[in-house]
Amino acid sequence: MKRFIGDIGEHALIKRLTSSFVQKSKQIRCGVGDDGAIIASHKGDPFVMTTDMLLEKRHFRPCWTTWREIGKKSIEVNLSDLAAMGAWPRYALLSLGLPLKTSLRDVEDFYRGASDALRPYRATVIGGDTNASPGGWVISVTMIGDFPKSRKKAPLRNRAKAFDRLYVSGHLGESALGLYCLEKNIKGSFCRPFIKRHLCPKARVLLGRALTPHIHAMIDLSDGLVADLGHILQESRKGAWVWREALPFSLRFIKGTRRLRQNKWTLGLSGGEDYELLFTASRNKDKDIKRIAKAHRISLTPIGEVRPEGGLKILNGQGRAIRLQCGGFSHF
Amino acid sequence: MKRFIGDIGEHALIKRLTSSFVQKSKQIRCGVGDDGAIIASHKGDPFVMTTDMLLEKRHFRPCWTTWREIGKKSIEVNLSDLAAMGAWPRYALLSLGLPLKTSLRDVEDFYRGASDALRPYRATVIGGDTNASPGGWVISVTMIGDFPKSRKKAPLRNRAKAFDRLYVSGHLGESALGLYCLEKNIKGSFCRPFIKRHLCPKARVLLGRALTPHIHAMIDLSDGLVADLGHILQESRKGAWVWREALPFSLRFIKGTRRLRQNKWTLGLSGGEDYELLFTASRNKDKDIKRIAKAHRISLTPIGEVRPEGGLKILNGQGRAIRLQCGGFSHF
Repeated sequence: MKRFIGDIGEHALIKRLTSSFVQKSKQIRCGVGDDGAIIASHKGDPFVMTTDMLLEKRHFRPCWTTWREIGKKSIEVNLSDLAAMGAWPRYALLSLGLPLKTSLRDVEDFYRGASDALRPYRATVIGGDTNASPGGWVISVTMIGDFPKSRKKAPLRNRAKAFDRLYVSGHLGESALGLYCLEKNIKGSFCRPFIKRHLCPKARVLLGRALTPHIHAMIDLSDGLVADLGHILQESRKGAWVWREALPFSLRFIKGTRRLRQNKWTLGLSGGEDYELLFTASRNKDKDIKRIAKAHRISLTPIGEVRPEGGLKILNGQGRAIRLQCGGFSHF
Repeated sequence: MKRFIGDIGEHALIKRLTSSFVQKSKQIRCGVGDDGAIIASHKGDPFVMTTDMLLEKRHFRPCWTTWREIGKKSIEVNLSDLAAMGAWPRYALLSLGLPLKTSLRDVEDFYRGASDALRPYRATVIGGDTNASPGGWVISVTMIGDFPKSRKKAPLRNRAKAFDRLYVSGHLGESALGLYCLEKNIKGSFCRPFIKRHLCPKARVLLGRALTPHIHAMIDLSDGLVADLGHILQESRKGAWVWREALPFSLRFIKGTRRLRQNKWTLGLSGGEDYELLFTASRNKDKDIKRIAKAHRISLTPIGEVRPEGGLKILNGQGRAIRLQCGGFSHF
């Protein structure tokens, strides 16, 4: 029987494919399977690499947004991966496949957006490739970040410990609600903040760096809470309880879901592209985390705990495990 | 008037776009505009990054080749960029956009080919991204190489000196002739070596490293001799004479062009994807270069000289400048 990639899902595919590569090297501190790869350069500081591909019609639609926003977002999604490694953005490689009839102005706007996203970190584009594309736009960004050599432990996905507390930054679900508004062509000023969250995400780079010394495992929420927490649990071989009632929702999001008759839990648990940070930390780190939340003016909400085993359980207000209606975003 | 990217060409586009990025940093020893970017890691050895995007129908056609060959080629074209920097391949990031109905076997074959190309250097895939593509296959490879810190000068494009001798490795034009056979659907055993040169190029990594201490500027021939030499001349602000009669052609290539009524000069001067190395060196390095040629069992042919000014001139057997019928491969 012929098997298609759609049948097995992205993570199984990657596991299957990369198992054939020799990966044992002292210098690869972390290879395939985390937000980024960590390379210990000989004598020098280690650096982190991350890459993301965005395809027209699959990841963005030019009719929904401006090219400047697309340029910005294609950098931000990579910054978010670096944030989840606690790394500082340094360099970017920007490869584009462009339809021949692309106007110069659109490409310039795209670069302007990319530049906007890199500027706060004084990160810079050091290379790339441009090609004519027979289909739509193709954007492939690779970013390099670094962190001080003294920092022995990056917050990898496999470092969650049993009885760690689970935290999430900011608010959940708004991006998914924004996508819903775009797809259903719902207009109205109340939709705008959600649409903006979807089209113009902002990576939590400073927060990620501040958290890193105090936490165990971290991931950025791109595929949805359940899917991304799943990656941590799988890599750390742990289970978790998530207290559904503790999930951080903004008031406007709750109102929005009511108005659009959407289930806030589904969006919060399974909606993608929040680009918030999900992390685990010892209980005794609560004070440090509160301090960081205050300093960064962002909420860092405890939403559950890591368990020695038993998979992922979502508990309702009465402490009963509830069934999930759907998982996260799959790339296939 | 609306301007399209097709009107201005790849290099003008890149220049225009990247001028907006701040690129002044002590650590960026070489940024946009060469085969790779060189980063001096803090205290550690510098490393080189290069990236290339391959798009179905634009850069390859699955009906012409196997997925294993495509996997191999997508690595080799990046290895060739590293070769032209005199760097040693270390790590690769491999991002794919795949149509949903891609068979698992094709993807596995692709990875097998990529793995084949990396194995001789013990280089390894450290990350990547996979996505469903609404169009054809999209392949984006980023490679990281390094060289000893002691090596102060990489053979950058801007380092050609007046009165340097111009050299090229191996033979020219075979890949372009192979592409012609594929496009015109010409079959016959005499075509096979040319088609193979086109579908299965081999980067000159060891040669590039051996040459580096003895030469000034180097580039790999991907867009054709005239176009790629043009990059060196532009970056170095020099002119050049190329002796047409000195161009290295294989006997089988000369026979093949006669049989197919193709102009060998046009293919040799403007045909793309030879993935040979073009470099400039002082005249007194002739002995070293002959020694390296012998050790690597490859011809390194002097084909002209760098001039203080006057653009690129192709001289025929009588020493008269001839007109070029066409330039190299443009990505748009």
